Amino acid sequence: MTEQIRTGQWPNGTKLPAQRHLALTFGVNRSTLQEAIDELKADGILSSKVGSSTYVSNDSWNMLLKQKQPNWQKYIEASIHKPNYQTIQLINEFEQDDSIIRLSTGELAPSLLPTAQIQASFQQLQLDGKSIGYSSPQGSLNLRAAICNYLTKRGITTAPENICIVSGGLQALQLIAVGLLETGSIVFQEEFSYLNSIHPFQSFGMQMHSVDFKSQDKEIFQRRRGKRQGIYYAIPTLHNPTGRIWSFEKKKSFYAMCQSLQLPIIEDDVYFELSFEALSPPLKSIDTTGQVLYLGSVSKTLSPGLRIGWVVAPSPVIKRLADIKMQMDYGSSAFSQEIVSYWLTSGLYEEHIEKLKVELKRRAELMENLLEQYFKEIASWESSKGGFYIWLKFNAPIITTDFFMNLLNQKVLINPGYIYEPKDTYHIRLSYSYTSDKELVEGLYTLYSEAVQAIEKNREFN
Amino acid sequence: MTEQIRTGQWPNGTKLPAQRHLALTFGVNRSTLQEAIDELKADGILSSKVGSSTYVSNDSWNMLLKQKQPNWQKYIEASIHKPNYQTIQLINEFEQDDSIIRLSTGELAPSLLPTAQIQASFQQLQLDGKSIGYSSPQGSLNLRAAICNYLTKRGITTAPENICIVSGGLQALQLIAVGLLETGSIVFQEEFSYLNSIHPFQSFGMQMHSVDFKSQDKEIFQRRRGKRQGIYYAIPTLHNPTGRIWSFEKKKSFYAMCQSLQLPIIEDDVYFELSFEALSPPLKSIDTTGQVLYLGSVSKTLSPGLRIGWVVAPSPVIKRLADIKMQMDYGSSAFSQEIVSYWLTSGLYEEHIEKLKVELKRRAELMENLLEQYFKEIASWESSKGGFYIWLKFNAPIITTDFFMNLLNQKVLINPGYIYEPKDTYHIRLSYSYTSDKELVEGLYTLYSEAVQAIEKNREFN
Repeated sequence: MTEQIRTGQWPNGTKLPAQRHLALTFGVNRSTLQEAIDELKADGILSSKVGSSTYVSNDSWNMLLKQKQPNWQKYIEASIHKPNYQTIQLINEFEQDDSIIRLSTGELAPSLLPTAQIQASFQQLQLDGKSIGYSSPQGSLNLRAAICNYLTKRGITTAPENICIVSGGLQALQLIAVGLLETGSIVFQEEFSYLNSIHPFQSFGMQMHSVDFKSQDKEIFQRRRGKRQGIYYAIPTLHNPTGRIWSFEKKKSFYAMCQSLQLPIIEDDVYFELSFEALSPPLKSIDTTGQVLYLGSVSKTLSPGLRIGWVVAPSPVIKRLADIKMQMDYGSSAFSQEIVSYWLTSGLYEEHIEKLKVELKRRAELMENLLEQYFKEIASWESSKGGFYIWLKFNAPIITTDFFMNLLNQKVLINPGYIYEPKDTYHIRLSYSYTSDKELVEGLYTLYSEAVQAIEKNREFN
Repeated sequence: MTEQIRTGQWPNGTKLPAQRHLALTFGVNRSTLQEAIDELKADGILSSKVGSSTYVSNDSWNMLLKQKQPNWQKYIEASIHKPNYQTIQLINEFEQDDSIIRLSTGELAPSLLPTAQIQASFQQLQLDGKSIGYSSPQGSLNLRAAICNYLTKRGITTAPENICIVSGGLQALQLIAVGLLETGSIVFQEEFSYLNSIHPFQSFGMQMHSVDFKSQDKEIFQRRRGKRQGIYYAIPTLHNPTGRIWSFEKKKSFYAMCQSLQLPIIEDDVYFELSFEALSPPLKSIDTTGQVLYLGSVSKTLSPGLRIGWVVAPSPVIKRLADIKMQMDYGSSAFSQEIVSYWLTSGLYEEHIEKLKVELKRRAELMENLLEQYFKEIASWESSKGGFYIWLKFNAPIITTDFFMNLLNQKVLINPGYIYEPKDTYHIRLSYSYTSDKELVEGLYTLYSEAVQAIEKNREFN
């Protein structure tokens, strides 16, 4: 441990990993580790806050080394980008732990990814040295052409020059934030928003404003926006987290409203392919004014590890986003781009999705049966129309950080509603896409038991 | 064209592509195109500024459609991130044109990339569904372990928890900018800096300050920095663009100075493997205080298309950068990470680099012979010590934007010194890594002829 401190790997203020983890790392048993920690505490090199974790003392390091180091904690705290919420950091961390039941993760189960097929298809690619060099600013032309062709099937007519390849839909939001919006811009979003669980806009001084998704009251938008720039972030198809799908009527009237307000729209459409029902065409298909920035991705369908998504937009916007992307990471993985291009053009992609939807539908039904069996009296929900999620609403306000932590201690990981709307204490975004059937049964039962207890406590308290 | 305008693909203010390009796109001859343009100008739908390009008129769109669209140009101009310099945008664009001789590109020639070997190695990967799902925040553990092991060979001892995988070195700079520095921080850099050709720090309100690389005057740093946070960006090995290599003495005294100033250091070491001579260990190897953020990458050695690099830093810094990366793009391509991991652990990577260096050295010698033959009287340079570049200094101040454009018109693309130091008019970063021998001869001769003319003009002018 002193070596970790001496070499600066653990600077002042570092929170030590869990003892179980440390004992494993150093290959000693827990009591030996405890002795060493006690000794270092006595020397003032480590310290504990009451009842909590052990830290590298703030002055210990000088005691150990009589040298100076940068105060990284201060750097981190003063810097620009917001950290992820503690809950999200825990989710990101525990998703790596195979013993955890991931009851609400936005990801396909490993068994649903066509891993062997992707690996085999790699040999079919026409790679040359040029295709694996630095990418052109907007990304592989072959891939952009394949996407154009693919999008015609949902009613979108576009050209390769109107597409920019990105490393997943999230990166598109980052590019839009720093490449199109000024500090102080208003980002409108639906109530319960995926955007609240990340901070691409908030970190750069944009203000989020949630509006009831039914609202078409122009004055609300005008009043909130004032003379500032604004943009509306919408997920009209299989909304994350609520699963909602807009009707074509809603799309048309919403588009007309935004057009008369000259309010651009981000249409996040990464779940489109996973609908169980036939869908009306996206907003982008009725966009005659270059008002809609359309986002797609293969992360929810083919593999998140590819990190490939796209933006469709008017060419000045695309040129701008591509220029920023060149300054951020010089383009997306060429190998990933080649794979996606091959899957789109060979028909493998659509074949895969057809099979995938059958399995997702089976899983959705299993989850609904279990909900029906256990949760009927304490919560409500709507049948899934596709994608990964069921938006479960409890009758009592029990979904708190304590509830989240209690479940995590029982090795069940949930996405609580409050990461999508900070004040919410009623919802969980359940997911049937990741767990095995056995885990799903077990996880839902644990959730049910915990919920019953929480409801009981909530009743006593009131 | 009206269709492009009507569907919003060409919003108001869009500059039309070159006529040659348009004629090809629409499959008409130049005179037909000219007629159509004239007609649309007469209608007020297109307009030209005197002697320059054709634009979509600012009010034409309403005339055409009587509808409203967002003013994207205004959005772009008011937004946060700086655009690339016009020269860099042109470089990025023309690098895609195969008929161009790329005389200074920072990229290996397609023929030097082990494309077929990478493609074959893909079948050796132990992929499963989990490895191609969403990545853990710091990236693949296998890859991080492989990097640790690889770095011991250059004297750096670290652990997987002190590594974050990034999509190339450039992304590391973006993460550091928004994840570690506050607005107004001072970023120190050497004179002639790669950082001036991109804007990861400037776009977020950090101030760049160039210092003579020999300077070890603590007061200069203290005065410039004041009470603000600061960081020093250094490329101690095969500096981009100058090719300089710091001695071990220089590294030690520089590190000691930064340590006493508590000034963190970004050590950008992406060219380390490409040295023709034995090197002293990097700054990071003598870092006992967690002062150095160490950047590496395979973009200059294996393939830029992989988009894989890494940061080695104290664990609070790594956790912070990983958290920001999760908010930016949810991690780097899993396929790319698996490939790099395999190449590092199988020994293929080092075998490849040994062969690569032999070829780079041959190319460097060819370039120097040509320089000796043509440029001796008009410019000076130092022998290349490795990597891709020779930093050519002309005796007269001739390297202007006009010079750049004149060469581009002759299909020779250069990186002028002014993209690394805005006021410079003397330098070119020449590169022997990309062109064929024939192109190199031809490109250098074109450069020579243009330079002789510019010198002549410069002499007349003075």
